[in-house]
Amino acid sequence: MTIEKIGILHPGAMGISVAAAAQNSGHTVYWASAGRSPHTQARAEQHYLVDGQSLAALCHTCTILISVCPPHAAEEVAQQVLAHRFTGLFLDANAIAPQRTRRIGEMLVAGGVSFVDGGIIGGPAWQPNSTWLYLSGPEAERVAGCFANGPLETQIIGEEIGKASALKMCYAAYSKGTSALLAAILGTAESLAVRSELMQQWQRDDPTFPAQTENRVRRVTAKAWRFAGEMEEIAATFAAAGLPDGFHLAAAEIYTRLADFKEQEEVPALTTVLAALLHHSQNNQTSERKVTG
Amino acid sequence: MTIEKIGILHPGAMGISVAAAAQNSGHTVYWASAGRSPHTQARAEQHYLVDGQSLAALCHTCTILISVCPPHAAEEVAQQVLAHRFTGLFLDANAIAPQRTRRIGEMLVAGGVSFVDGGIIGGPAWQPNSTWLYLSGPEAERVAGCFANGPLETQIIGEEIGKASALKMCYAAYSKGTSALLAAILGTAESLAVRSELMQQWQRDDPTFPAQTENRVRRVTAKAWRFAGEMEEIAATFAAAGLPDGFHLAAAEIYTRLADFKEQEEVPALTTVLAALLHHSQNNQTSERKVTG
Repeated sequence: MTIEKIGILHPGAMGISVAAAAQNSGHTVYWASAGRSPHTQARAEQHYLVDGQSLAALCHTCTILISVCPPHAAEEVAQQVLAHRFTGLFLDANAIAPQRTRRIGEMLVAGGVSFVDGGIIGGPAWQPNSTWLYLSGPEAERVAGCFANGPLETQIIGEEIGKASALKMCYAAYSKGTSALLAAILGTAESLAVRSELMQQWQRDDPTFPAQTENRVRRVTAKAWRFAGEMEEIAATFAAAGLPDGFHLAAAEIYTRLADFKEQEEVPALTTVLAALLHHSQNNQTSERKVTG
Repeated sequence: MTIEKIGILHPGAMGISVAAAAQNSGHTVYWASAGRSPHTQARAEQHYLVDGQSLAALCHTCTILISVCPPHAAEEVAQQVLAHRFTGLFLDANAIAPQRTRRIGEMLVAGGVSFVDGGIIGGPAWQPNSTWLYLSGPEAERVAGCFANGPLETQIIGEEIGKASALKMCYAAYSKGTSALLAAILGTAESLAVRSELMQQWQRDDPTFPAQTENRVRRVTAKAWRFAGEMEEIAATFAAAGLPDGFHLAAAEIYTRLADFKEQEEVPALTTVLAALLHHSQNNQTSERKVTG
């Protein structure tokens, strides 16, 4: 087995578990501390990642780079890697539309970089059989080898760049799309004074559904700031496939209204979440009135 | 107990079960055969509904009229009843936005008709504890009395016209909204060649989910022609509450693309449903190209 020198961009909650899985399979994992938060620093030190300091150094040292970042940053990370003349293998494991993945891939391949498309489904990968890294592209096998011992599971689904991204988009379209839909429904029901009646009817259908729904809506708030961008990627994916993009543009709007819960200390009460959804719209209506008045 | 003379407009699959429940509580139920299909005729005869022949006759004879029709027809039915100088109690039990229900109610009350808002949740009401008629309005009690012996269940949720409609909208926003979302996701996955991989990942989460989803998407096609209008009503409900209408405008588009399955003899194969979703968009793209070319 080749021992790879893997650079992880960047070790957030998901990225650090990917890094740990690569270490678990005998590889050396690097990160670049320049400009990163104390939280990220602490995570990287706790898991003994090698600090290459700068992205430039990682591009020089590493044989493989893995990009795990919010969707809006994916293209910029790839551009930076190219600017630093990386010539190894680049895995984009971000939640982005397949057409964007193909664009990034073409750019990198033209610059002499090998490219693999990845899509991660599941939470941070600390248990076997819980988180899948789907891979597509001619060199997917080499990436799968980085995680041979788990607990991150890998599955190669083809040679075509864009397939792993497409699968991730379709999966998140339901899981994160319905969380946003449920938040919007509860906001509407609250506004129309039928929330308790709706919960009662849901209870009649399935006794576990009301509590599950309340939990989903309250807990999704912490991640809403980065889900908005992912919803826009899904909308673009649907549009490119010839299907309506409205579900996920609406979901993006819901997550945008909840973005301020990013720095919360505790999971907010449901009424606080619904107030944020509804108050936001009141603010908008007020400002619209000002513009037209 | 007052024995009511109830006119049902019109006895479709849901309406006939509402009629039978009223008979089961000792009331006499009328219908108007003029202009109705042989299917409706057969249903009405099978359940011994009294044929008042015309809407005009029903408006003269009946003490209560119940409107159960596709959303787009709700306002016209109410206008016709007013034109025929009905002076009893009118229940609108349709899936329409609360603001539309209020408009219909104000029109009828101004014309001397008593008005109750209703929303039906569940399928045709042949079993107890399966279908709820939610009611709101000052005279809701009298309508509830029409179904005292079940199996249609009733629940009064307030005096305000619009509340029963609001509850129906919020409930259907999830049940019918997610059926449309799942159809759109499977269409996108089919187009991007990741449908079997998506089904496999769903299977990992919940072994029952892929088959349930396939069934939902195949079976919803028969009702798609009338769900499109209901989705537009839900979109209007969300917009009036200050929340994004995009989820259900997209759902309306999905159901519109599936509307031709109305007259199907058998439940279509999933691939047939997805082809209809995707072929429709190809047609659109072709015609757009023609317009701009």
